[in-house]
Amino acid sequence: MTAPDPALLSLNTATVRAQWTLAQIIDGCARHGIRRISPWRDQVAKDGLQATAAHLRATGLELSGYCRGGMFPAPDAAGRAAARDDNRRAVDEALTLGAPCLVLVVGGLPKDAAGTPVSKDLAGARAMVRDGIAELLDYARPAGMPLAIEPLHPMYAADRACVNTMAHANALCDELGDGLGIAVDVYHVWWDPDLAREIERAGRARAADGTSRLLAFHLCDWLVPTHDLLLDRGMMGDGVIDLPLIRSWMEAAGYRGAHEVEIFSANHWWKRDPDEVLATCKARHATAC
Amino acid sequence: MTAPDPALLSLNTATVRAQWTLAQIIDGCARHGIRRISPWRDQVAKDGLQATAAHLRATGLELSGYCRGGMFPAPDAAGRAAARDDNRRAVDEALTLGAPCLVLVVGGLPKDAAGTPVSKDLAGARAMVRDGIAELLDYARPAGMPLAIEPLHPMYAADRACVNTMAHANALCDELGDGLGIAVDVYHVWWDPDLAREIERAGRARAADGTSRLLAFHLCDWLVPTHDLLLDRGMMGDGVIDLPLIRSWMEAAGYRGAHEVEIFSANHWWKRDPDEVLATCKARHATAC
Repeated sequence: MTAPDPALLSLNTATVRAQWTLAQIIDGCARHGIRRISPWRDQVAKDGLQATAAHLRATGLELSGYCRGGMFPAPDAAGRAAARDDNRRAVDEALTLGAPCLVLVVGGLPKDAAGTPVSKDLAGARAMVRDGIAELLDYARPAGMPLAIEPLHPMYAADRACVNTMAHANALCDELGDGLGIAVDVYHVWWDPDLAREIERAGRARAADGTSRLLAFHLCDWLVPTHDLLLDRGMMGDGVIDLPLIRSWMEAAGYRGAHEVEIFSANHWWKRDPDEVLATCKARHATAC
Repeated sequence: MTAPDPALLSLNTATVRAQWTLAQIIDGCARHGIRRISPWRDQVAKDGLQATAAHLRATGLELSGYCRGGMFPAPDAAGRAAARDDNRRAVDEALTLGAPCLVLVVGGLPKDAAGTPVSKDLAGARAMVRDGIAELLDYARPAGMPLAIEPLHPMYAADRACVNTMAHANALCDELGDGLGIAVDVYHVWWDPDLAREIERAGRARAADGTSRLLAFHLCDWLVPTHDLLLDRGMMGDGVIDLPLIRSWMEAAGYRGAHEVEIFSANHWWKRDPDEVLATCKARHATAC
């Protein structure tokens, strides 16, 4: 593999969220020559939607995605309606910011207000996800905002996302049609023996207008040992994922989009100088991906 | 679902390994009327193989499995030969103890002596697993010791087992033939959208002598939140797994074997009075499985 095009590097803003505000992240990326970012809704809300849009215009940064919609399952109709309304607002924000897609973390089992699962019906949760995406597509498709299902690692099936494989995401795309695609995050799917085949399947499936189903590509690494289920992701090259191999599958499937670095790391990268983190992302993108 | 037959309850000895020696566990099970156990090799080595076999005979306890063989991938031929020899000893021990199967935790990426992965070649590791099982079958099959592949949760793909789905285990069984089956542990497979189908597939596939591929069924629960990747499993009923549903799939597929409780729980069950743990296992087997 030749090194990836440095212009494809994008920073998911979670990577330095502990150290910097979104405005500082945007300025930091501009300073480091990272031309794409993928911000989170809570960060945008804090800095203000219009202020963030103006800041992006002023710096010329583009989005590689917007994090995130989803969380469809809920114990009752009121909860599902609240999720629907919130997801529509997420679509509106993604449009305002010029995002190429809204990433969906679809949700796990229905939870109460305290976040405790109130059901063990995983198939039922998956049906709520399908129905929720279908309803959101009716809003997002005419508005021109693609939705990107992010299959999450099976260890998040209960509490974050009950779509846990590329095969499941592809099946939902097959069923629900245009305007829906997939965000491929290596952390979540690297273990899957069907990964190459399912990336190829996603690349083959194109919308009527030729749009690819492969909407995003997220990078980090799987550390051995991993000390926390959520907040112990590794920098590219520090773990066991064969990143160049997975990138080669994405490229063979026609993907030409951003390489978005997304690292949740409470005890390491979130404690480092954020300028050092950004410099490391750039260096590792060149040498380890 | 009606409650399961209490006679099917088995204790995987890891469940109280922090509190009791194997001899104490055997006596404890006999005292609580738990008639089956599944011991670990290190515990057997500590108490002595022949002494353990005699103790089992004296108490009349039967095994539901023997933990464990596997760990096939290694960086070099010497490492793989060492794994082969060790696995043959595990087969011998399983025969001495009268185990119905030797459970295989197949291993992840090849590691150095310190346990650090030295390769990112997951497909290569999977090939080593296939070759290692094939070679071990040549030893175990004529000896009459079935091998049970235990697909492990994808979060263990790097360091413990690179067979992470029932589909992968079924494919290995299809390829390698008689004498090989599957240990279904709910903790590892509950999230899989193909679980019902793959259990049914395993039930349909029978050896020439009519033996089922479904060799073992392990119970515990998935806690939300889970605080540790390895040592934070829950007691049946304390988590989100629909245990009666999965048991119904096993039974529909013809499984009539033991229900083996296996709970690694450093901060909860390993700190409780082991008699209380055993009583809780019995109670939850009756009410939550």
